[in-house]
Amino acid sequence: MIGGDAAGGSAASQAKKRCPELDVVMFERGRATSYSACGIPYWISGAVGNEKDLIARTPEQHRQAGIDVRLRTEVTGIDLDRRTVRWRDSEDGDEGDEPFDELVYATGSVPMRPPVPGIDAGGVHGVQVLDDGVALRAALDGDVRRVVVVGGGYIGLEIAEACRVRGLDVTVVDMSPTPVGTFDRDVGELIADAVRREGIELVLSDAVEAVDVGADGRARGVVTASGRELPADLVVLGLGVRPDVRLARDAGIPLGGSGGIAVDARMRTEVEGIWAAGDCVESRHRLSGQRVVVALGTHANKQGRVAGINIGGGYATFPGVIGTAITKVCNLEVARTGLSTEEAEQAGYAFVTAAVDSTTKAGYFPGASPIRVKMIAERRSGRLLGAQIVGREDSAKRIDALAICIWNEMTVDEVLSLDLSYAPPFSPVWDPVLIAARKAFQAVEDDIRELVTD
Amino acid sequence: MIGGDAAGGSAASQAKKRCPELDVVMFERGRATSYSACGIPYWISGAVGNEKDLIARTPEQHRQAGIDVRLRTEVTGIDLDRRTVRWRDSEDGDEGDEPFDELVYATGSVPMRPPVPGIDAGGVHGVQVLDDGVALRAALDGDVRRVVVVGGGYIGLEIAEACRVRGLDVTVVDMSPTPVGTFDRDVGELIADAVRREGIELVLSDAVEAVDVGADGRARGVVTASGRELPADLVVLGLGVRPDVRLARDAGIPLGGSGGIAVDARMRTEVEGIWAAGDCVESRHRLSGQRVVVALGTHANKQGRVAGINIGGGYATFPGVIGTAITKVCNLEVARTGLSTEEAEQAGYAFVTAAVDSTTKAGYFPGASPIRVKMIAERRSGRLLGAQIVGREDSAKRIDALAICIWNEMTVDEVLSLDLSYAPPFSPVWDPVLIAARKAFQAVEDDIRELVTD
Repeated sequence: MIGGDAAGGSAASQAKKRCPELDVVMFERGRATSYSACGIPYWISGAVGNEKDLIARTPEQHRQAGIDVRLRTEVTGIDLDRRTVRWRDSEDGDEGDEPFDELVYATGSVPMRPPVPGIDAGGVHGVQVLDDGVALRAALDGDVRRVVVVGGGYIGLEIAEACRVRGLDVTVVDMSPTPVGTFDRDVGELIADAVRREGIELVLSDAVEAVDVGADGRARGVVTASGRELPADLVVLGLGVRPDVRLARDAGIPLGGSGGIAVDARMRTEVEGIWAAGDCVESRHRLSGQRVVVALGTHANKQGRVAGINIGGGYATFPGVIGTAITKVCNLEVARTGLSTEEAEQAGYAFVTAAVDSTTKAGYFPGASPIRVKMIAERRSGRLLGAQIVGREDSAKRIDALAICIWNEMTVDEVLSLDLSYAPPFSPVWDPVLIAARKAFQAVEDDIRELVTD
Repeated sequence: MIGGDAAGGSAASQAKKRCPELDVVMFERGRATSYSACGIPYWISGAVGNEKDLIARTPEQHRQAGIDVRLRTEVTGIDLDRRTVRWRDSEDGDEGDEPFDELVYATGSVPMRPPVPGIDAGGVHGVQVLDDGVALRAALDGDVRRVVVVGGGYIGLEIAEACRVRGLDVTVVDMSPTPVGTFDRDVGELIADAVRREGIELVLSDAVEAVDVGADGRARGVVTASGRELPADLVVLGLGVRPDVRLARDAGIPLGGSGGIAVDARMRTEVEGIWAAGDCVESRHRLSGQRVVVALGTHANKQGRVAGINIGGGYATFPGVIGTAITKVCNLEVARTGLSTEEAEQAGYAFVTAAVDSTTKAGYFPGASPIRVKMIAERRSGRLLGAQIVGREDSAKRIDALAICIWNEMTVDEVLSLDLSYAPPFSPVWDPVLIAARKAFQAVEDDIRELVTD
């Protein structure tokens, strides 16, 4: 295994479990295994009290399962002919070669860094691995008042909110006209409202052109393309990530068109005996048919499990993704699945949309809170292509129901007849999801009628 | 329309909307239309402040939509040859005949009353229609300290909790060994614990044999089959309901084997031009293939909509039910879908089960609460047949995801690969639903292995 986080850790566990006679060696660059990178923002905000809470499986637990864990040991090269990996211990500088029969490439991702002047200055932080989180938290404990977050996607907003919770002045810069650009614009507006209400400043449709570096070599703000100067004691990069494929490229393990490592459904690369899983691979999007890179712990765990089962002599496949994502932005819950309108267009679908506002419980029930459900349905067929949910508590997790509808290629007409649960403390008698399906079905019908009338 | 609640109201609205030239007359025995019977317990507990809040659509709203609403008017007979219904105004005693071309039979259900001595005494209350709720609430406002609830199903427990919230001593009597007998025994035990923790006494595996009536003609307790005497100032019948098919039977509209009115997927009875919808009809269970009566507002609304669209010249079908249900029992959320183990046995399935305990958010996230997911999967095929969820807040509504898996006849192997939403505030990296699917898949695999080994 190269990498001991979600994908590598899962693959190692499964392979060893299925086939105990395997010698499993796990190289991990960092000092922790199987931790929740997604939990870092909540540890920074203080919602999660202890760094240790983020560790799902410690090196000791892996070792007890019979896995040879090499921490702080970086793999520096893969020799496909000799079937060895070159490693270096980052503590004592030792180096060596480790032979393998089967190799799992699970290097994860690297944070995107805009190639602008000053980006490597002191006071510019990433939030990719646990050590980044430790460094950022230590910095925030110092004399910091103003923070600029570069990137208004999931991770950018989560970090912005964490800093705001700590009482700091926070500005988020993003190139898109609304934050979390993977949502439709109308949903993005609601996200922007929630973020601003929390006292976070948003600089949208603008990009960071340079980090302003002081005489001490530390960042003291950023300058944007539109000429704005945003002073800051600390700059955090929350631009998202790209697959870490350096070693693979050097070794000649083929990449796919999306930039991730190309794998089949069993997580085999195109090189015999080399497997890959997690943020570094590309997955099949079940709606667009395209290969996409989606860096999410939930996929990494599943893919690692699949690779491990296959290596251990079993049979398992990873059937692809449909773009499900969820986040909490201040008081707002937002989630999406399938294609956004923009993605649906790019994928060549003709579609209609429908959005409804409802409540999470029966309207008369105490604690009922607003929820908006938006659906994207294919013209003519009525097939559900995508959905987005925004609302207060108890809203966003309902996206799973729609993700499963999309997974099963249901039409909105079929969706509206589903036997979903109902009781006043849990939903109106017509569940918001079903009301949205009714309205989407209406839109599909109206569209067909127009065709006939024309 | 005979009946102006969920099914009748929906049918009337849809028919009139699709075909405005129709003359739609809606007879309603009570004084309200389209109200939430499921909300009555919450109005009794005080959680819902105002009786009016339970009304989804007032008679005035129906009238504005062009529907001729006749309140407090009971239909006393249907003449299929002359195509008329006989009606009687319960206020002034007027009677008359109303002709029809199409008739929607939406009489709903009647509460089950055990045929025991004293059942008709004063102080014995039902909770079926809004007027029952009004009467019960008025009685509870009087000098009441001890309440016995007959029946420990959904409605029985909801009423028991409402009375307990009002500070009363409450005892629930039920024939099953665990409350809400439609759940598996292990889940039922958890429900029983939650109910008892709330200070409600449970008398299980026992039945009410008689209502003890005082000299004043009022109930002063119940006597059970096992000889227990349970004193009470008030007795509430929460035994559930059966379809109200009296008029249909008298008129010769055929019933199905389950006792509900037989209808096809378009909600047509076997008599030309006579439709039926709501609690009074039987539906096809998509897993057992059997006809079942499920009295739930959510089905009634869907069925009414389907009947109304068809009468209005459109085409719509009701594709059946899979037994999804949800309720809040004190602090516990419980939900089910598909078949219980008992139902799966009765339907002739061979199956394995798996249950897992997890958390509603990432384990390290503040507010993560326990959730148990149980799955029933068919042997060999691994098809998901049923699921049950018990937990604290944010647990039970997740049943919808599994309901949709069952609806689409997914195997547990397919379920565990689903692209469900993940972020620490919403679920562990392996969603509880997916962990349960993994364990159920394991059970299916182990079972197959045993077969091979045997």
